[in-house]
Amino acid sequence: MSDWINKIKFNEKGLVPAIAQEIRTGKVLMLAWMNSEAVKKTLELGTAVYYSRSRDKLWVKGETSGQFQVLNDLRLDCDGDAILVLVEQKKDIACHTGRETCFYRSYEDNDWKELII
Amino acid sequence: MSDWINKIKFNEKGLVPAIAQEIRTGKVLMLAWMNSEAVKKTLELGTAVYYSRSRDKLWVKGETSGQFQVLNDLRLDCDGDAILVLVEQKKDIACHTGRETCFYRSYEDNDWKELII
Repeated sequence: MSDWINKIKFNEKGLVPAIAQEIRTGKVLMLAWMNSEAVKKTLELGTAVYYSRSRDKLWVKGETSGQFQVLNDLRLDCDGDAILVLVEQKKDIACHTGRETCFYRSYEDNDWKELII
Repeated sequence: MSDWINKIKFNEKGLVPAIAQEIRTGKVLMLAWMNSEAVKKTLELGTAVYYSRSRDKLWVKGETSGQFQVLNDLRLDCDGDAILVLVEQKKDIACHTGRETCFYRSYEDNDWKELII
């Protein structure tokens, strides 16, 4: 493995949390996970590739929906255990619910209220 | 426990990843972790409280540095296993390195290059 990939501190399951942020709107779209293969594949393809924990395999975001996340920049945090993926979200939808972002619930009065986004 | 806190899916260690985003600049500042107590304390104090995995205890962000993250909104994602904390970053510094954000390294030519931020 290259030296740069070793600077990423994957957890005991070989995964690192990856935050996807829309480069044009600045919105945080989702949090997913990457293993080292997903990181390399993201750079290779130029579009976000995650590791699906439920399906236990690589997941090219948008491969079935067309909602690709075109890579703009990949950032690593100070202690190397989180990644920020700056992307251009195709079709302006990141969430499987059809919303722009997965973070559409806001805390209010002891409950989560759905935002219109 | 209240119903709303049960909608958060904490992992096997009782933690959920929390992304802090600056409400004024839109910058993603850091990724940290919260347990249920940290989530409640964040709402109670109106400033971000995380769970420090290295120190194994609650951590009021800014308690020693003054770099508090004043709470603007708390968001939950579609599957309940990630939190977005919208904050106003006091002193404009989130990172322990003195930088505005922890995500100051950018991938370039098989290495991580430090950005001037």
